Amino acid sequence: MTQPIPASPQDSPFARKLTAFVTLSQNDLSVMSDLYRRRRKFAVGIDIIHQGQTDQSAYVLASGWACSYKILRSGGRQIVDFQIPGDFLGLRSVLFRTSDHNVEPVTPVRASEVTQGELLDAFSRTPRLAAAVLWAASRDEAMVVEHLVNLGRRTAIERMAHFLLELNARLRLVGMADKSGFLCPLSQYLLADALGLSAVHVNRVLRELREEGLVTFQKGRVTFDNYDDLVTLAMFDRAYLDHDGPLLA
Amino acid sequence: MTQPIPASPQDSPFARKLTAFVTLSQNDLSVMSDLYRRRRKFAVGIDIIHQGQTDQSAYVLASGWACSYKILRSGGRQIVDFQIPGDFLGLRSVLFRTSDHNVEPVTPVRASEVTQGELLDAFSRTPRLAAAVLWAASRDEAMVVEHLVNLGRRTAIERMAHFLLELNARLRLVGMADKSGFLCPLSQYLLADALGLSAVHVNRVLRELREEGLVTFQKGRVTFDNYDDLVTLAMFDRAYLDHDGPLLA
Repeated sequence: MTQPIPASPQDSPFARKLTAFVTLSQNDLSVMSDLYRRRRKFAVGIDIIHQGQTDQSAYVLASGWACSYKILRSGGRQIVDFQIPGDFLGLRSVLFRTSDHNVEPVTPVRASEVTQGELLDAFSRTPRLAAAVLWAASRDEAMVVEHLVNLGRRTAIERMAHFLLELNARLRLVGMADKSGFLCPLSQYLLADALGLSAVHVNRVLRELREEGLVTFQKGRVTFDNYDDLVTLAMFDRAYLDHDGPLLA
Repeated sequence: MTQPIPASPQDSPFARKLTAFVTLSQNDLSVMSDLYRRRRKFAVGIDIIHQGQTDQSAYVLASGWACSYKILRSGGRQIVDFQIPGDFLGLRSVLFRTSDHNVEPVTPVRASEVTQGELLDAFSRTPRLAAAVLWAASRDEAMVVEHLVNLGRRTAIERMAHFLLELNARLRLVGMADKSGFLCPLSQYLLADALGLSAVHVNRVLRELREEGLVTFQKGRVTFDNYDDLVTLAMFDRAYLDHDGPLLA
């Protein structure tokens, strides 16, 4: 589940991810390595970002999985997305006065803390990195849009298939999966809160997908038994993840 | 519905909006006015941005309303958001190889075309503008997250109330509304596609809101009859719009 911390900035999941958008120069990598300086650890059960709190830092996730969610005044919770190595945690929080969401670890997490000042300083040293971070934020938004379509227009089984294919594509970009599948630490409760289903429903949908020979989620591993048919079922078009880079030389 | 085009960059809706995040310097304003050079007009019924197309420009909306939406392979459509003056149209499209969504005018639109090269050039001339555009993109994402919560966790009447309060807050930021209400060109069909309801259901929900003395949507105008009670019903907390700036002096 966890990955060894890479020795050099260009091997980091963050750099691998941004390389889908921009060819990173030595200067870009040097500015990025400054953003890695303050590495912190978070245990499961302790929020990394708090909804309603001001003066939050953002983090670049180095290893482990996290999830972002909103608590409603009615007491319910909606998981917005999961974060994997290379993703920002709380990028919005570092730009907004008040964080509008929570982030908590799904597994033990190592992440580098970045303040607003450090981020703006990095932007002025390399505007290409600013463009790359804007690209990453746009990709995050594109995923939330897909999750909106998931909830609004897809059946439970299509939703689950789409979700597993998206996770696989994201993990492949940072070298943590291949087309055969991936290690997945998500419980059925987390899947339920992300997909707007009950845990019982999640269990039924996963059984259906397995019995139809499409995908098996067992013992912390997702195995694609028939990748192409799963793509057809989910109407999965990975263009919105924009992984065929770099666009910017 | 439409606004006169402002004579100076600092009076533009785009500048008014970004001022919620950053105090714009003379240099920032001069770079922004370069982004306004190629003003174009779009009639209703003609897509401004096309899903699946490459090499798209982005636009800064100067006057009129637009909407962004996705067409599913199944043929259905999901409206992701509406855009008002000061908003970007297709910011993701200008960074991605392939646009993952469509944008079409809701009313006649005037908008300034911005290419990827122009945007990156502007970032290198003023990294503060890069931060402000990242803020604007983050705010767009925060709104999509709220729409996700809308679909996942709110009833039809709460959803409509939240949606009208959000639009009002956004329009107030660019000087096109006050607490009493706003001019609104959206049809019940557009509301339905945005809120995941049928047009008949939209009609019923609007009647309920009117009969309870909360809000009246008639003849292209939304009038808040009891703003505070509407906020309570919708559990509307405008922190996610981050309008209390500027944060960055």
